[in-house]
Amino acid sequence: CTPPPFPEARRGRDIFAMSSDVEGRASGGTASILPTERARASFTTLDMTHKLDGGAAKTARRRWIVSMSAGMELGLEKYHMSRAELLDRHVRDFIEIHADFGHRMGVGKFKPTREEVAWMSEHAMNSGPFWDHYVPFLTALEGQGSAAQFAEWGVRAAKLQIIGTYAQTELGHGSNVRGLQTTATFDPSSDEFVLETPTLRAIKWWPGGMAKLATHAIVYAQLRLGTLEHGVHAFVVQLRDDSHTPLPGIELGELGPKMGDAGHDSGCMRLLGVRIPRQNLLDRYQHVTRDGQYVKVKEAAANVPTHYSSMLLTRASWVQLAGGQLAKACTIAVRYSAVRQQGFVASGERQLLDHTVQRRRLLTQVASAYAVKFTARQLLSETAAIEDPGIPIKDKLQLMPSLAADSGTLKALATLMAADGIEDLRRSCGGNGYLLSSGIAALALDDLWHVTAEGDFVVLLLAAARFLVKRSQVSSFPGDAEKCPSAEDWMNGEKTLFLVGCMAAQSLEVAANRVAESRAQGVAEDDALNDAAELLMTAASWRGYHKMFVAFHSETSAAGNPPEVTMVLQRLCALFGCYVVTRMSAGMLATCTLHVGEAMRLLCAQLRDDAVALVDSFDYEDRVLNSTLGVKDGRVYEALYDASRRGFQDFAEPFSGYTSHLQPMLDREYLSHGAARARVSAERSRL
Amino acid sequence: CTPPPFPEARRGRDIFAMSSDVEGRASGGTASILPTERARASFTTLDMTHKLDGGAAKTARRRWIVSMSAGMELGLEKYHMSRAELLDRHVRDFIEIHADFGHRMGVGKFKPTREEVAWMSEHAMNSGPFWDHYVPFLTALEGQGSAAQFAEWGVRAAKLQIIGTYAQTELGHGSNVRGLQTTATFDPSSDEFVLETPTLRAIKWWPGGMAKLATHAIVYAQLRLGTLEHGVHAFVVQLRDDSHTPLPGIELGELGPKMGDAGHDSGCMRLLGVRIPRQNLLDRYQHVTRDGQYVKVKEAAANVPTHYSSMLLTRASWVQLAGGQLAKACTIAVRYSAVRQQGFVASGERQLLDHTVQRRRLLTQVASAYAVKFTARQLLSETAAIEDPGIPIKDKLQLMPSLAADSGTLKALATLMAADGIEDLRRSCGGNGYLLSSGIAALALDDLWHVTAEGDFVVLLLAAARFLVKRSQVSSFPGDAEKCPSAEDWMNGEKTLFLVGCMAAQSLEVAANRVAESRAQGVAEDDALNDAAELLMTAASWRGYHKMFVAFHSETSAAGNPPEVTMVLQRLCALFGCYVVTRMSAGMLATCTLHVGEAMRLLCAQLRDDAVALVDSFDYEDRVLNSTLGVKDGRVYEALYDASRRGFQDFAEPFSGYTSHLQPMLDREYLSHGAARARVSAERSRL
Ligand SMILES: Cc1cc2nc3c(=O)[nH]c(=O)nc-3n(C[C@H](O)[C@H](O)[C@H](O)COP(=O)(O)OP(=O)(O)OC[C@H]3O[C@@H](n4cnc5c(N)ncnc54)[C@H](O)[C@@H]3O)c2cc1C
Ligand SMILES: Cc1cc2nc3c(=O)[nH]c(=O)nc-3n(C[C@H](O)[C@H](O)[C@H](O)COP(=O)(O)OP(=O)(O)OC[C@H]3O[C@@H](n4cnc5c(N)ncnc54)[C@H](O)[C@@H]3O)c2cc1C
Repeated sequence: CTPPPFPEARRGRDIFAMSSDVEGRASGGTASILPTERARASFTTLDMTHKLDGGAAKTARRRWIVSMSAGMELGLEKYHMSRAELLDRHVRDFIEIHADFGHRMGVGKFKPTREEVAWMSEHAMNSGPFWDHYVPFLTALEGQGSAAQFAEWGVRAAKLQIIGTYAQTELGHGSNVRGLQTTATFDPSSDEFVLETPTLRAIKWWPGGMAKLATHAIVYAQLRLGTLEHGVHAFVVQLRDDSHTPLPGIELGELGPKMGDAGHDSGCMRLLGVRIPRQNLLDRYQHVTRDGQYVKVKEAAANVPTHYSSMLLTRASWVQLAGGQLAKACTIAVRYSAVRQQGFVASGERQLLDHTVQRRRLLTQVASAYAVKFTARQLLSETAAIEDPGIPIKDKLQLMPSLAADSGTLKALATLMAADGIEDLRRSCGGNGYLLSSGIAALALDDLWHVTAEGDFVVLLLAAARFLVKRSQVSSFPGDAEKCPSAEDWMNGEKTLFLVGCMAAQSLEVAANRVAESRAQGVAEDDALNDAAELLMTAASWRGYHKMFVAFHSETSAAGNPPEVTMVLQRLCALFGCYVVTRMSAGMLATCTLHVGEAMRLLCAQLRDDAVALVDSFDYEDRVLNSTLGVKDGRVYEALYDASRRGFQDFAEPFSGYTSHLQPMLDREYLSHGAARARVSAERSRL
Repeated sequence: CTPPPFPEARRGRDIFAMSSDVEGRASGGTASILPTERARASFTTLDMTHKLDGGAAKTARRRWIVSMSAGMELGLEKYHMSRAELLDRHVRDFIEIHADFGHRMGVGKFKPTREEVAWMSEHAMNSGPFWDHYVPFLTALEGQGSAAQFAEWGVRAAKLQIIGTYAQTELGHGSNVRGLQTTATFDPSSDEFVLETPTLRAIKWWPGGMAKLATHAIVYAQLRLGTLEHGVHAFVVQLRDDSHTPLPGIELGELGPKMGDAGHDSGCMRLLGVRIPRQNLLDRYQHVTRDGQYVKVKEAAANVPTHYSSMLLTRASWVQLAGGQLAKACTIAVRYSAVRQQGFVASGERQLLDHTVQRRRLLTQVASAYAVKFTARQLLSETAAIEDPGIPIKDKLQLMPSLAADSGTLKALATLMAADGIEDLRRSCGGNGYLLSSGIAALALDDLWHVTAEGDFVVLLLAAARFLVKRSQVSSFPGDAEKCPSAEDWMNGEKTLFLVGCMAAQSLEVAANRVAESRAQGVAEDDALNDAAELLMTAASWRGYHKMFVAFHSETSAAGNPPEVTMVLQRLCALFGCYVVTRMSAGMLATCTLHVGEAMRLLCAQLRDDAVALVDSFDYEDRVLNSTLGVKDGRVYEALYDASRRGFQDFAEPFSGYTSHLQPMLDREYLSHGAARARVSAERSRL
C-alpha cells in the first residue's frame, strides 16, 4: 500500500528538482547536514565498525547474514499492521530466509553460531515466535536431551519440520521455578507420563509461539514416580496434529495484545491428563526405567559444562541484543538531533546536539551501547574457555559458578540499561519520538520484556549477590573512595575504573557484613538475605558495571587499534565511567558530584564532532531502523510528512461515529455559512 | 463480545460453587487475601480518601462526576479495539455523558472547574480528542479571545455545536514557539488574513482532534501587516464544512499509530492561502484595524492575570492528572503484589510485598503519588490568589512570574515522576505487566507524551532556572548538607525537608555562580546559560521537589487530621523525602547513602500493613482501572485467565499464513503419526 504522492507532485511540480538543501514547500532543507557532520569526524567509520564487530572478517560475515533479509522490509506500513498480519509476514519471511540460507550453504549445512543468531535478532525487521523455536526450544533440546532425542526432535526442528515452544512459566510461578505445579506422573501400566495442570495457577503461561505457531513444546513439570517427587523436569509434548488442530486434552489460549512485539503469539496451555511416551522425558542427565525407577546418568558431571556454556551463550545473546537495540536507538536519536534545530530565540537556533543537556543524554547512551556491545563479546570469549576441550573439567567446574553469577548480573544490567536508555533517547526526540513511525518508539516497546523474561533483573542480581556473599570472596576495600577526584581525574577512564573497582569491593563488604550481623543475631538465613536485599543488589550492580568497564577499557587499550580510534574510545570509555557513577548515585560529596558533571560536559564537548560517526559505525541499514527520524540521508522532514500520508488508512472519512453521534450535535447551519464564506474567499486566492 | 465461558462451566461444573480461597482448577485461591490486608490497616480508608480529595464534600462531588460514566466501560475488550473503534466509542460516550450532565444540571448550566475536568480525565475510561476541545482550545479562546469572540465560538464550543483543536506546533518547531513559520498576512483589499504554511517545516503538526473530529482550529501564525512582522498570534480557522469535508486550501493528515492513546487522532495541516475574516484574530490583547494598523489593548483592560491564571490552572491539571495516573498504577501494583506470592524456595514463598526490594519500589511510588496529588491542590489554591478580585493587580503582577516558573517546574517533575514511576511499578508486576490487559501497561503508554507536550521537561526546567538566576533570588547556603545524618534523622520528614531546602538553595547558588563567572569572562549570555544547563536543571529540580515536599508536609501537619492519618502520612512524607534525595543522587558521603537506604527500609517496614489501604484510599473503581492485576477482590488469576480467552479473536485458526507458508515445511507424516498415538492414549485417560 503506497501512500498518495506528495501533493506537490500531484500539482505537477517536480519536487525532486527542488534542492533539498533549500527549505521549501516540499523540502525540509536538511540534506547536507549529515554529510557535513560525517566530514567532521576524527576517525574512519569503517575502522570503528570493525572494532565493534571484532574484526573485518566478522563485519563481512555479519553483513552477509543481514543481507539475507534485504527486500523483505515492511517499511512504515509495519506500524499499521494487525497482529495477524505481522505474524503472517514473520512466518513467510522467516521461512524464505532460512530456505535461502540452506540453499547457499548446502542444505542443512548452515548452523549459525549464537553470536550470529543474535545478529539476526538485532537486524530482524519483524520479530516473532520463530525466536522461541530457535533459541529457548532448541537450546533446551541440546542442553537437556540425549543424542537420540536430539536426532528425533532437534534435527526435525532445524529443518522446520516441527516447530517448538518453551513452556516453563505458569500463571502462578515465574521467578520461582521450583514452585511449578504442573505434574508429570508415570503410569507404568501404559509406560507413559500423564501431564496435568491441576490448578488454575498451574496453567502454562507466556510461551512464545504456543498460541499459534508451534507443533511441539518442551514442558516443565514436577516428576512423580509412585509416591516420590523428583522435582522439575523437561518433557517434549506434541501440541497439534498435521492439520494444526490441538490434540485432545490440550487447551490453548493467546494472552492478548502487549505493549509491543505484536506479531509474537504468547500462549497459555491447560493440560488435562495428556499422555506422552516415557521416552519424552529429556534424559541427558537422568532417565526413568520401564519399571518407574529414577536413574541419574553417570557422566552427568562431564556434561555439566555443556549445560553451563549453553546458559552463558544464551545470556551473552541477551547482552548482545540489548547492546544492539540501544545502539539502534542511539543511531536514530543522534541523527535526528544533528538534523533538528530548536532554540529559545528564532534567530539563535542550535542543532539539538549543541544543547548541552541533550548532548550529554545522547552521548552517555552512545557510551553505554559501546560498553554493552564490548561486554557481550567478552562474555562470548569467556564461554569459549568452558567449551575448550583442552581445559580440564576440574578447572572448568571451578570457573563456572562465578561465570554463571556474573552472566546473570550482566544480563540484568544490560537489559535495564537498554530499556532505560532507549526510553530516555526516545524522549530526547520530543513529540515525534511518540510516533511508532519514529522507529525509536517501537524499539522502546518491543524489547521491554527483556528486563523480566529469562530472569527478572532483581531476581538475577540478588541471586548473583547471594553467590558472592556465600563464597565470601569479599576483599576488603582497597582505596579511599571518599576522596574527591577532580573533574580532570574523572575524564581519565583509568582512574574511574579504579574507583569503580573500589566501590564494587566496598559495597560487597558492606552487604556481606550486614548478612553476617543478622546471622550472628540468629535471624533465619532467608530473612537475613531479605533484610540486606537492597545492599546485595547494589553490590551485584557495582560488580557488573565494573566488569563492563573492564571490557570497555581492554578494547580501548587493545593493540592494533588505529590511533584515532583509541583516542575517541578513551573519551567514550571515560564518559561511561562517569555515567556508571551517576547512575549508581554513588556515595560522594556534593563537590565531587559537581566534578563528575563537569567532566561529563567536557568529554561530551570533545566527542561532539564524532557523534554522528560514532553511531554510523554501528552500521544499521535504513530498512532495519525503519525510522523517519533516523534516516541515513537526514531528510527527516520529508520522511515524517511521508509517514503522515499513511495515517488515514486507519480511519474512514468522515470517521465512523460522525454521522450517528457527532453530526446531530453540530450547528450545521453555522458551519455551512462559514464554509460558503470560505469558498468565496478561496476563489479570491485563486485569482 | 463475550469470551467463551470458563471451560469448567462448559463441562457442567459450577465454578462459582467452588470456594475461591481454595486453589483449584478454576480458582486461584486468593479471594481472602485483600480483605485480610485491609483488616490490617492502621487507619480508615475513607478518612484518607477525604484527605486526598480535600474534604468529604469534594469526595462526594468527585464520586458524582465519576458516576456519570458508569456502564460505559469498554472492559478488557478495549485492548483489542482498533483506532477507529476507539475513536467511535470516545465520541459516542463523551457526547452521551455531556448531554446527561446538561440534563441534570439544567441545560448549559454545568460548567466544571478545572479540578473537576482533571478528575474527568483521571477517571476517563477511554481518552481521546474531546480533551483538546475542552482543554487547550477552550482555554485559548477564554484566555486570548475577547468577550464577543467567546460569545461566537466559546459558547458554541461549550454546547458541542463546533469542535475545536489547538494548532501551535509545526513540523519544524515545537519548543521554540517564536520560530513558527506559518504566516497570516493581512489583505486590506478583502479585509482578510491569508494563512500559509510556506515550507514543509511550517506544516501544523500534532494537534489532537484535527485529523478527524474538529470543525475549527486555533492556529498560531506570524502576523504580517504590510512589511511589518508582529510575531506569533492566534487565529480561529474553520476546517470543515457541514458535511465534515475539509474546506478549500486546507490539507489534513493523520500522524499514524503512537505508543498509546490510540483513539486520539493527532493531525497535521498544510494551509495553502486560506482566507479568514480579520475578526478571526483573537483580540483580547491587540487587534488589527480595518486599514491594517496593529493596536495593543490597554493592559488593565486586557486583564493579564486571567492569562496567567489559565496557564496555572492548566499546569495544575497536568500535575493533578500525573498524580492520578501514578496513583492508579500504585493501586494495581500494590494489590497484585499483595496477592501474588513468589520466592526462591517452594515452601518459603512470600507475598511480593514482603520482598524488601519490591516493597521499597512500591511504597516510594505510593509516597510520590501522595506528594504529587497534594502538590496539585496546593497549586490550585495558589492560583486562587491570582483570581481573587480582592487582591490588587500590582501585587498579582509581582507574584505571577515566579508562580509561572514554579508551575512549569512542577508540571515537568510531576509528569516525569509519573512516567518513570509507572514504568517501574509495571516492571514490578513481572511478565504480566507487559500485557495491555494488566491495565498498568496501558497506563505506562497512554500518557507518556505528557513529559513532552505543552512543555518538554528539559525546556521547562531550564526556563524556570533561568528565571530564578535572572531574578538572582539566590540565598546563600544556610545549612551544612555535607554533615551525615543518621538513619533515624532520615526517618524524620522535617529534618529531610530542611536538608532538601538547603540543597535547593545551594544548587541554585552553584548554578548562578557558574553563569556569573562565564559572563564575567565575556561569554555570550546564551552560551553561558547553555554551559551551565545541567546545573540549572538540577537547581530547578531541587526547588520543585522542595515545593512538593512542603505541600506534603503541610498536609501531614494540618489541623483536623485524624491521628492515625497523621501518623501514616508522617511516615509516607519522610519516605518521599528519602526518595527525592536518592532520585537526585544528592551529593552525599557513602555512609550517608547507606543511612538513607536503611531509613527507607525501616519506613517501608512500618508502612507495610497499610500498603493496601493506602492505595484503596485513592478510590478507583474496577471499571476505571480496567486491570486484571488490580481487581479490587484480588482474584487476579481468574481475571488473567479470563482475559486470555479473548486473545484468539486477534487471529484466525489456524493462523493466516499457516497453509501457504508453514504447512509445506512441516513433516506432516511425523505429526500425524504422533497425533494418532496421542488420540489412542487419550482414550486411555478417559477410561
Ligand atoms: C514477552 C514475554 C515472553 C515470555 N516468553 C516465555 C516463554 O517463551 N516461555 C516461558 O516459560 N516463559 C516466558 N515468559 C515468562 C518469563 O520467563 C517470566 O515473566 C519471568 O520468569 C518472571 O516471572 P513472573 O512474570 O512470574 O514475575 P514474578 O516472578 O512474579 O516477579 C514479580 C515481581 O516480584 C519480584 N520477585 C519475584 N521473586 C522474587 C524474589 N525471590 N526475591 C525478590 N523479589 C522477587 C520481581 O523482582 C518482580 O518485581 C515470557 C514473559 C514475557 C513478558
Ligand atoms: C501526543 C501529543 C499530542 C500533542 N498535541 C498537541 C496539540 O494538540 N497541539 C499542538 O500544537 N501541539 C501538540 N503537541 C506537540 C507538543 O506541544 C510538542 O511535542 C512539544 O512542544 C515539544 O516540541 P517538539 O516535539 O518539537 O520537541 P523539540 O522542541 O524538538 O525537542 C526535542 C529535544 O530537544 C530539546 N530541546 C528543545 N529545545 C531546547 C532548548 N531550547 N534548550 C535545551 N534543549 C532543548 C528537548 O529537551 C528535547 O529533548 C503534541 C505532542 C504529542 C506528543
